[in-house]
Amino acid sequence: MQLMSMIEDMAKKAKLASRRLRRLERAQKDAALRLMAARLIERQADIIQENKKDLSKAREAGLSPSMIDRLALDETVIQGMANGLEEVAALPDPVGEVTETWERPNGLLVKKVRIPLGVIGFIYESRPNVTVDAASLCLKSGNAVILKGGSEALSSNLILAELLGESLKEIGLPPEAIQVIPSTDREAVSVLIGLEDFLDIIIPRGGEGLIRFVTSHSKVPVLKHYKGVCHIYVDEFADPDMAKKVVLNAKVQRPGVCNAVETLLVHNNIAGEFLPSMSDLFRNAGVEIRGCPKTVKLVPWAKPAAKGDWGTEFLDLIIAVKIVSDMEEALDHIEKYSSNHTEAIITNDRERSQTFLAEVDSSVVLVNASTRFNDGNQLGLGAEIGINTSKIHAFGPIGLEDLTTTKFVVEGKGQVRT
Amino acid sequence: MQLMSMIEDMAKKAKLASRRLRRLERAQKDAALRLMAARLIERQADIIQENKKDLSKAREAGLSPSMIDRLALDETVIQGMANGLEEVAALPDPVGEVTETWERPNGLLVKKVRIPLGVIGFIYESRPNVTVDAASLCLKSGNAVILKGGSEALSSNLILAELLGESLKEIGLPPEAIQVIPSTDREAVSVLIGLEDFLDIIIPRGGEGLIRFVTSHSKVPVLKHYKGVCHIYVDEFADPDMAKKVVLNAKVQRPGVCNAVETLLVHNNIAGEFLPSMSDLFRNAGVEIRGCPKTVKLVPWAKPAAKGDWGTEFLDLIIAVKIVSDMEEALDHIEKYSSNHTEAIITNDRERSQTFLAEVDSSVVLVNASTRFNDGNQLGLGAEIGINTSKIHAFGPIGLEDLTTTKFVVEGKGQVRT
Repeated sequence: MQLMSMIEDMAKKAKLASRRLRRLERAQKDAALRLMAARLIERQADIIQENKKDLSKAREAGLSPSMIDRLALDETVIQGMANGLEEVAALPDPVGEVTETWERPNGLLVKKVRIPLGVIGFIYESRPNVTVDAASLCLKSGNAVILKGGSEALSSNLILAELLGESLKEIGLPPEAIQVIPSTDREAVSVLIGLEDFLDIIIPRGGEGLIRFVTSHSKVPVLKHYKGVCHIYVDEFADPDMAKKVVLNAKVQRPGVCNAVETLLVHNNIAGEFLPSMSDLFRNAGVEIRGCPKTVKLVPWAKPAAKGDWGTEFLDLIIAVKIVSDMEEALDHIEKYSSNHTEAIITNDRERSQTFLAEVDSSVVLVNASTRFNDGNQLGLGAEIGINTSKIHAFGPIGLEDLTTTKFVVEGKGQVRT
Repeated sequence: MQLMSMIEDMAKKAKLASRRLRRLERAQKDAALRLMAARLIERQADIIQENKKDLSKAREAGLSPSMIDRLALDETVIQGMANGLEEVAALPDPVGEVTETWERPNGLLVKKVRIPLGVIGFIYESRPNVTVDAASLCLKSGNAVILKGGSEALSSNLILAELLGESLKEIGLPPEAIQVIPSTDREAVSVLIGLEDFLDIIIPRGGEGLIRFVTSHSKVPVLKHYKGVCHIYVDEFADPDMAKKVVLNAKVQRPGVCNAVETLLVHNNIAGEFLPSMSDLFRNAGVEIRGCPKTVKLVPWAKPAAKGDWGTEFLDLIIAVKIVSDMEEALDHIEKYSSNHTEAIITNDRERSQTFLAEVDSSVVLVNASTRFNDGNQLGLGAEIGINTSKIHAFGPIGLEDLTTTKFVVEGKGQVRT
């Protein structure tokens, strides 16, 4: 009950703050972001000290070395956060843009004007630097944000939010624009996603279980993806060398992320030429192959794929490989198993690539490029706060502009409806 | 259980159909829509016969004459539906539009391409003609739709869906693109909103209770508004005659709809001149005034407003009236009580109107025009399937284009991520 009233109180304050933020000029927001960057550097000793509390708790709790590594803040990471703030300050301000304008036969002048969403609830399990990234994108787009980070990062997140809030205050802006929920209680998520009177959108990032829970129970609209089961289809008209380079990159450059490739589909006519040398590259990179029967014939060291391997997000140096008799079979496979995240075709045939790009129902579809490019920065959005595989609002990477919406502004001369 | 498997089966078929719809040319969709219009006219005797079943059940159940009137289909209403289909055929096709295109420093060519949402679940309690309107907008935007209408209109909705499906089939398109749930079981709604694997969006229209239920329980993203508590603020610099004309229109032209005005805010400096004659117009139109103490002083026949009258959607010939000491008080009142639907200011002062338009956080904000213009047709969107007051996806009237999203289409030459 105490938790509920505390979070509701935070949400009310966030909504009040958002009313101020709605009308901010770009210069004020950028000044705040730059001041925040300076504060993080000035106060890095304090940040590192608070972070040490999280680290020692994490060690006591027996967290894995890789998790502890993700949690640790040092001068380099803090400098990275400060740079990120400067970069967001340098991005254009989406708010206030008139996206369309037209006149009605009765003389009404109609405009669509870009406005902030209002209050964003951001739920995440990641490194503490995500706190700063997310807060900066929300502020730049004129939104207040309530952050619910992983409990293992609470002390770090609280000091970061405190410094960001101090910077806001110093510049005359409401510190409640950026608030971290000061609780490790998992119930906090349930409370937050019920507050539809104060929150406009929830963005959850983390494990599939968390995101399914949020999606099932939230009264606030949710932008999210459950997982990235990304496919690459190597067509019979592919350049085999390009195909190998792209597929290898998509699998091994960072296997633990959502835009890494999980299933490789290979056209039967190129499989004999392509797969043996591709599999050598995989073996050298330590990638395990789980193949269809035809694949296993061509690559004797490959494991036979189990049924459950299709559509699985391995997040690891594992790839499922299937030989298909034509592109239609590849498209059917993707239609069945894709997570609507990212799929690519490798081909030099223009008709094939255009059909693939048109047919595949994913947020990012690529020809002759790595799936790893589904990323706000890589695609040129400047930054992203997540990736959305539901079709609403912003399908794909959620950039600054996607943290806004448009309202209709109508100017008349006394028109009435007849 | 039987209901669940039936609806799940419908949803699977809809998803399959949506794969076909994704790639349709405009000409095919328009041909289908025009054939549907012809079929409705040819088969109007059958429609009227099925409608009679609904009407006699409605009479037995003791529905009010106005509800029975809303339910009735005659040749005029059917002609209206056919005209609506022709109008949607004449609207431009949003699908396939390249909304943006740019090149990245590494040579990747990035495009955003407009695509259908996929499968839409439409839940409504309205007249049977809404079935045809909604189905036509979904088809034109390349979406499959599952319709759950009011149980009192089931026989009418079923014959309409059958005729639309026959037209699809005749033209070689999947009839499962348009399906009406053949059940009056209220549980059908619960089933439908759980099918996130097959549905992309839910649009509920009807009473606030239904919509709150859907919002609380849906796993599928929801576009909706609970209610329209629309405000008009008559500024001290308003033209009193224009103000009277606009306010009267907004209240009485159709009081039972969401974009009718519910609360009138009047600047203190104009109240003495404006309110007495405004109230005469109200009295002549049979409008009850529930006023603040100052209003009651100026308009002795007005009832004193109770606390609960502010923020109430009367949907009737009732208006709450409050005198405010300045625009800031009006903005505060709107911030507190608005449903983010539609608000208007009447003023000839440019600075005031621009501040109002910028400050008010509603899907449609107007200066010197009736709130009744928050409507897809009136604003020039061609048609609408509903109005959304959540900030995501399409804030305001949901037109054809809003039944689509964009995906990223990326063309490379073998680029990999480094």
